[in-house]
Amino acid sequence: MPKIVDHDQRRGEVLEATWRVIRRSGLEGATVREIAREAGFSNGVLAHYFKDKNDILVKAHQLAFDRVYERVSRATSEKSGIELLRTMLYEALPLDEERLIEAVVDVSFLGRALYDADLKSVRLESAASARIWWAAHLTRLREENLLKPDVDIELVAGWILAMIDGVSVQAVLFPELMDAALQQRIADDLVLRICS
Amino acid sequence: MPKIVDHDQRRGEVLEATWRVIRRSGLEGATVREIAREAGFSNGVLAHYFKDKNDILVKAHQLAFDRVYERVSRATSEKSGIELLRTMLYEALPLDEERLIEAVVDVSFLGRALYDADLKSVRLESAASARIWWAAHLTRLREENLLKPDVDIELVAGWILAMIDGVSVQAVLFPELMDAALQQRIADDLVLRICS
Repeated sequence: MPKIVDHDQRRGEVLEATWRVIRRSGLEGATVREIAREAGFSNGVLAHYFKDKNDILVKAHQLAFDRVYERVSRATSEKSGIELLRTMLYEALPLDEERLIEAVVDVSFLGRALYDADLKSVRLESAASARIWWAAHLTRLREENLLKPDVDIELVAGWILAMIDGVSVQAVLFPELMDAALQQRIADDLVLRICS
Repeated sequence: MPKIVDHDQRRGEVLEATWRVIRRSGLEGATVREIAREAGFSNGVLAHYFKDKNDILVKAHQLAFDRVYERVSRATSEKSGIELLRTMLYEALPLDEERLIEAVVDVSFLGRALYDADLKSVRLESAASARIWWAAHLTRLREENLLKPDVDIELVAGWILAMIDGVSVQAVLFPELMDAALQQRIADDLVLRICS
């Protein structure tokens, strides 16, 4: 009788192994062979799930991205108003080891996307949908009269995301300069500047 | 009679050639041979100026960084107050092709620095000195009573730099989402949020 394989679970295991390899050895070290070894599968099994290395990277990126926004949604389900906005920012920033790995995946991805049209369009799509997501949440705050009247929602959604990207890059590269305490203070200050 | 060589000029030419190669082919394409060809020198001449590829990258980064801050100083020498802050931000953002190339050099550098301790420490040093530079300018604005009383200078210097990094990454990767007009509006909004 053939072994029953949970493909979704296996795909998830492979992606998590990919993250660990990227974290340890960088994108250049994230070969199909190394990822297979880390996940405990053969190269052949891996080929079942992913077309090539770019396919693995794209899916690792999408997993990281989905996790951030799932976590934000979960963490904020019982919050509202300004407290909600603050929590959303905290969850999107690389404040702990889990979130730092997501940021490492992202910064690795960014560097490579610069010269790879496919990766670039994947990252563009993520950024565009994140911006819509933030704009929708800011609109809710506006409806509750919690935003300063001069806040332009589209504009502020754009700069919140630029801020998240910039803080993430710095936290990944020089945690001594962008530690968790500073990240939180930046998020708090941002809330203060746009909320009434 | 030996030809008189202006070494500083030649070094500058090599660095500019390096930028063009990075812009065109990415860091992976920026081999010593390709840079020598672009600059019109032999590999041997190039070896005279740079130890290895990392040395070229570090110097190309430092040139980009120095240019940004020289340009900011020049553009702002006859300005003061809030107008000065706005101009400083404009000059630090990749609003035109020249500044976009600097940002491409920087984003390429960031991706590689993730797994190279030497490059990382160079980038850390640049970020730390940029933060001091911004803090000094904010202090001047405070002395002129132009900052909102609740602005914490160290904190805001930190987030201005994170914002510049984030906007630069986005402008380089997806100019359709972070065009010059949005960059300027972000800078204007930032000024509005911290100046009284």
